[in-house]
Amino acid sequence: MITKPTLFLDKIKCKENINKMFSKAKRNNVELRPHFKTHQSLEIGSWFKEVGVDKITVSSISMAEYFSSQWNDITIAFPTNILEIEPINKLAQKITVNLSIENEESILFLCENLKFEVNVFLKIDVGYHRTGIEPTNLNLIDNILNKIDTNPFINFTGFLGHAGHTYNCRTEQGIVEIHKKSLDIMSNLKQKYIIQFPNLIISLGDTPSCSVAENFSGVNEIRPGNFVFYDLTQNLIGSNSISQIAIAMACPIVALHENRSEIVVYGGGVHLSKDRLNDKEGVVFGRVVSRTENGWGDLIPNTYVKSLSQEHGIISVPKDEINNYKIGDYLMILPVHSCTASNLMKSYSTFDGQEISRL
Amino acid sequence: MITKPTLFLDKIKCKENINKMFSKAKRNNVELRPHFKTHQSLEIGSWFKEVGVDKITVSSISMAEYFSSQWNDITIAFPTNILEIEPINKLAQKITVNLSIENEESILFLCENLKFEVNVFLKIDVGYHRTGIEPTNLNLIDNILNKIDTNPFINFTGFLGHAGHTYNCRTEQGIVEIHKKSLDIMSNLKQKYIIQFPNLIISLGDTPSCSVAENFSGVNEIRPGNFVFYDLTQNLIGSNSISQIAIAMACPIVALHENRSEIVVYGGGVHLSKDRLNDKEGVVFGRVVSRTENGWGDLIPNTYVKSLSQEHGIISVPKDEINNYKIGDYLMILPVHSCTASNLMKSYSTFDGQEISRL
Repeated sequence: MITKPTLFLDKIKCKENINKMFSKAKRNNVELRPHFKTHQSLEIGSWFKEVGVDKITVSSISMAEYFSSQWNDITIAFPTNILEIEPINKLAQKITVNLSIENEESILFLCENLKFEVNVFLKIDVGYHRTGIEPTNLNLIDNILNKIDTNPFINFTGFLGHAGHTYNCRTEQGIVEIHKKSLDIMSNLKQKYIIQFPNLIISLGDTPSCSVAENFSGVNEIRPGNFVFYDLTQNLIGSNSISQIAIAMACPIVALHENRSEIVVYGGGVHLSKDRLNDKEGVVFGRVVSRTENGWGDLIPNTYVKSLSQEHGIISVPKDEINNYKIGDYLMILPVHSCTASNLMKSYSTFDGQEISRL
Repeated sequence: MITKPTLFLDKIKCKENINKMFSKAKRNNVELRPHFKTHQSLEIGSWFKEVGVDKITVSSISMAEYFSSQWNDITIAFPTNILEIEPINKLAQKITVNLSIENEESILFLCENLKFEVNVFLKIDVGYHRTGIEPTNLNLIDNILNKIDTNPFINFTGFLGHAGHTYNCRTEQGIVEIHKKSLDIMSNLKQKYIIQFPNLIISLGDTPSCSVAENFSGVNEIRPGNFVFYDLTQNLIGSNSISQIAIAMACPIVALHENRSEIVVYGGGVHLSKDRLNDKEGVVFGRVVSRTENGWGDLIPNTYVKSLSQEHGIISVPKDEINNYKIGDYLMILPVHSCTASNLMKSYSTFDGQEISRL
């Protein structure tokens, strides 16, 4: 019985998302190394194992530690935090760790402090301008590679990119154009360095590109993460349909305000997160879907989360529909950002009464 | 040693904030019933006990359950969620519980399902328009009071308001004007109902009003919460100086991008929350302060969090200062919203090496 904000997971939708991405990777002859920062759950991770995935991506050492009990090849796709050298060494002793490097300081530090073997990717800025080496900065790339070359504990694996700027797209064409630029940048680098490093690989992976693009030439592996659940942001970008979104928050109705056609739910920023969309209604923090016997259905038109306090959610409802709702009932709300909403909740509930734990 | 994002609490600043608000309440002859949703910590709660506080406010049944081990008079300042009737009864059996009511449906449900005595406040909308009864809707007030009157388990305590619209203010005068309107609304209601209920009290309490206003005539208790830590939002509103902010996030530096004068820190939306300010620079997610031997000092000018991903924070730094920073060091960052940042972290670290737990 639902008594407070509860994060529901539709296992069927989630497994379909996993299968679809795995098949797409296979069809395109690239390896799927999914990013697990979205679900952060050993159990959901095991569904990836079932289809044949054996390598994963995470975004912190803490996540790598958590998943290292069941996964033995983990990429930490975050600029190496040298302050965590101790847990890095512990992980490297136990499993295959692939680090992301984008400056000389980190590689110098690793050269001096690593006690076990690690693989490193050079993080390339494919245009998002959040992290990474400018692809034209061959000087820096060469300097880092020279340092790696002389160290017995560090193996150069290849180049890694993340086209996070696809999140600004609102058309398929926009995503494909960005993806094409990433492919060009990475192909150039591959061509330049393949003679020196015949086994180097190219790793790319944002959910919009991986969901929409059909050309992955030159790419060896993809690292999408969000697709496991998808969300309203990805839907607005064009990555997924509403029916593919695999999580929804059940939120009790605690007040109705007919004069302003608003519902107050127990479900606030500490449940859905303060991530927001700028959509046709203005700022949106979530959208309400219809309830079905074993899950949820389609969006209820013009019914959305217009603001969030710590524990309150304010739902805007069409004037002639406010009387369809009653106090003591609950709404099902699709999150704007599934990664941050999941991060705020301790577990996932399923419709068959299961409680799925997470980090 | 700091190795990953760590939330630091300056105990001295925090205790000064507590003392100052307690003295102000005493001086104005109102009771301080602090809101504990900001810190959610039994230990920090005990510092309130030390100065003489014996009643508290929370915003969920879960928080009330947590604090009920040490506090026996708790107001749940959130529209009563009737789906949690079971834990409400359990709490009511153990301690004095004060519920917030704003509709007939909830009071009817309580009348039928309460097994132990509770106090109720009627929540009045003093102008924020998030929750509460319109103060002119005496019909609804009377209907609810009539239902309470005939039930042996429900005692009417008084009227409760929250002027959350002070958060839109940027001047002291603006806050004082809103506060004055709240006082007028509540005085009118008090006058109307005091003959029928000679012991009714008026409870108000948002941090801006309680920090800035000096007139509390007609008010019996105040319920501010955020003041225990304060934050950048409250500073922008005018509630506090930067030096009163009692928490800061230590975030390791993992990359430097001189060309765009940006630092990348390990510290993202899952640490600081996605709460944001619209300030002179545009959107701001946090500000960097100088580090001192036992804490932190003043703001470093023009050095702020310009964007947040899940684990990444991007810090904008003046062009001629980027070389003052180095990878493997850490920054101290003041949060935009201390309630949501604290909620994301498992504990508070102090400079004397203590680890303070929270819900």
